[in-house]
Amino acid sequence: MKIAIYGYGNLGKAAELAVNANDDMEVFGVFTRRDPASVKTYGAPVYSANVILNYKDEIDLVFIAGGSATDLPVQTPMLAENFNVIDSYDNHHHIAEHFAKVDAAAKASGHIAMISVGWDPGMFSLARIYQEAALPGANSYTFWGRGVSQGHSDAIRRIEGVLDGRQYTVPVEETLAEVRSGRGKEYTAREMHRRECYVVAKEGADLAKIEHDIKTMPDYFEPYDTTVTFITAEEMKEKHSSLPHGGSVIRSGNTGAAKENNHVIEYSLKLDSNPEFTASVIIAFARAEYRMYQAGERGCRTVFDVPPKYLVKQDYNDLISHML
Amino acid sequence: MKIAIYGYGNLGKAAELAVNANDDMEVFGVFTRRDPASVKTYGAPVYSANVILNYKDEIDLVFIAGGSATDLPVQTPMLAENFNVIDSYDNHHHIAEHFAKVDAAAKASGHIAMISVGWDPGMFSLARIYQEAALPGANSYTFWGRGVSQGHSDAIRRIEGVLDGRQYTVPVEETLAEVRSGRGKEYTAREMHRRECYVVAKEGADLAKIEHDIKTMPDYFEPYDTTVTFITAEEMKEKHSSLPHGGSVIRSGNTGAAKENNHVIEYSLKLDSNPEFTASVIIAFARAEYRMYQAGERGCRTVFDVPPKYLVKQDYNDLISHML
Repeated sequence: MKIAIYGYGNLGKAAELAVNANDDMEVFGVFTRRDPASVKTYGAPVYSANVILNYKDEIDLVFIAGGSATDLPVQTPMLAENFNVIDSYDNHHHIAEHFAKVDAAAKASGHIAMISVGWDPGMFSLARIYQEAALPGANSYTFWGRGVSQGHSDAIRRIEGVLDGRQYTVPVEETLAEVRSGRGKEYTAREMHRRECYVVAKEGADLAKIEHDIKTMPDYFEPYDTTVTFITAEEMKEKHSSLPHGGSVIRSGNTGAAKENNHVIEYSLKLDSNPEFTASVIIAFARAEYRMYQAGERGCRTVFDVPPKYLVKQDYNDLISHML
Repeated sequence: MKIAIYGYGNLGKAAELAVNANDDMEVFGVFTRRDPASVKTYGAPVYSANVILNYKDEIDLVFIAGGSATDLPVQTPMLAENFNVIDSYDNHHHIAEHFAKVDAAAKASGHIAMISVGWDPGMFSLARIYQEAALPGANSYTFWGRGVSQGHSDAIRRIEGVLDGRQYTVPVEETLAEVRSGRGKEYTAREMHRRECYVVAKEGADLAKIEHDIKTMPDYFEPYDTTVTFITAEEMKEKHSSLPHGGSVIRSGNTGAAKENNHVIEYSLKLDSNPEFTASVIIAFARAEYRMYQAGERGCRTVFDVPPKYLVKQDYNDLISHML
């Protein structure tokens, strides 16, 4: 199975490593909008994104490693016109819309596409649906962190006077403990997460104003208890250059004639590298997707459509004998 | 969807409650090998197991609530000759053999069958396969407990001089902590779990001999650190009559050019009632199985074959808009 990687930022690099870690697939090449000569990979050949159609018959599936804000809404439907594709589209409010566009393109061209793969959406979505199956009607709580939110870090960097910024999303420990104990209730955003910001300011910048601008930013920071700590560029590089993340999806629900028995299900992740884990998950779903394509499936799919047996390279007898 | 429950012990009772908790299905009836007049349900009609064939056209699926040791190896292939069936067969060493027999029967009769559903095998099997997909090649550790093992409790009760016994499987905390931290290695059975036994002895029984007989029992207790505590029948009833269980499936693995990034995935359950949670899971897979049957699938399946979307009653658009 030959996988093309479209885009070579953090996720694209991680995709190359993830394909290399699986011996039943290989990287066909990296396709970039930059000058190919300027892109250094771990070994994969680099092509201009403009020429990808020349390799239509040699590529089994395209891993689209663009961002959800502006890249994927355009790239995924466009590439689905000629390729099997997979993406990590993570704008939860617009997934249905993205699905419809990608589905139309993939069906028209006779390809398969899989959207919104990774850990959230992705593994956390699976945790939510299996929890709903096992304990129907109760509420699944999703906690993120402690980890770096790239969207919130970007938002800090757009503020006047800011040179660099890093934002950690942190679950509120008391709420997490309450949910884990089976006594979860309705919570506000503020009750579930807090936000820690580390900021390198430009020389002479108005620090009080930066702090105020962050803490009052609607949607991003205003609904949360937010702390702002000013640090030097050296400290930023030394202590905040990795991209850890993780979190938990937790459900508690009751069974019994009088609903007297409580059950708690928790799925949790502790990740040193958000992009590398995301890419590793996407590669497993790419394997499954390509098998579904070979079995005749066409159009858009999500993690909810995938029989788990397709995700791993072991054969079915091996799975039922050793993993079931 | 009309579900028949075949067998009415702890799991059969829990099955009736689980069906009642879902409004897209109903209990057709309970089928028992006992005198139907002696069986009191939560409301479902009771029939003799001998007459189930009379209702062949009215039953959509049979939930077989027998035991794995002697019931299911006979009942599941037999019932698959006339019905869609689901079971919780949990003898990990013989699953492939059970699968083959059930598959042959279901294919010959044009039905679908699903085996080994519950939490282990079942949800824990899914945790293992998704962990293998996301972090291929590493090791998944399965810890059970703290919870009551019915097989081990039965083994105690078969010892001379024992009136009643209850056995709790308990993970070794230090090992659990090591695995959770990402530093797991190879462990012996003794390093992963210990066994706590509570025993009511007959009057005048040789307590030292009972303790010795338990601790030296091959496979069941000898490979573990085992404690034996003698209690009264009253204490047994008061403190040990519920059937809690649970556990965790944990994997850690590495990614990165130099495998420098560690990731830990954990799926865990804390259950007040083992049979009720098991039944609740089986009912969700029965829903999925019946949808797969309606889509034309025949033969034996496991949880590894099931696209998650089939498990819940919500429609696909609802799922991708709210759960993805």
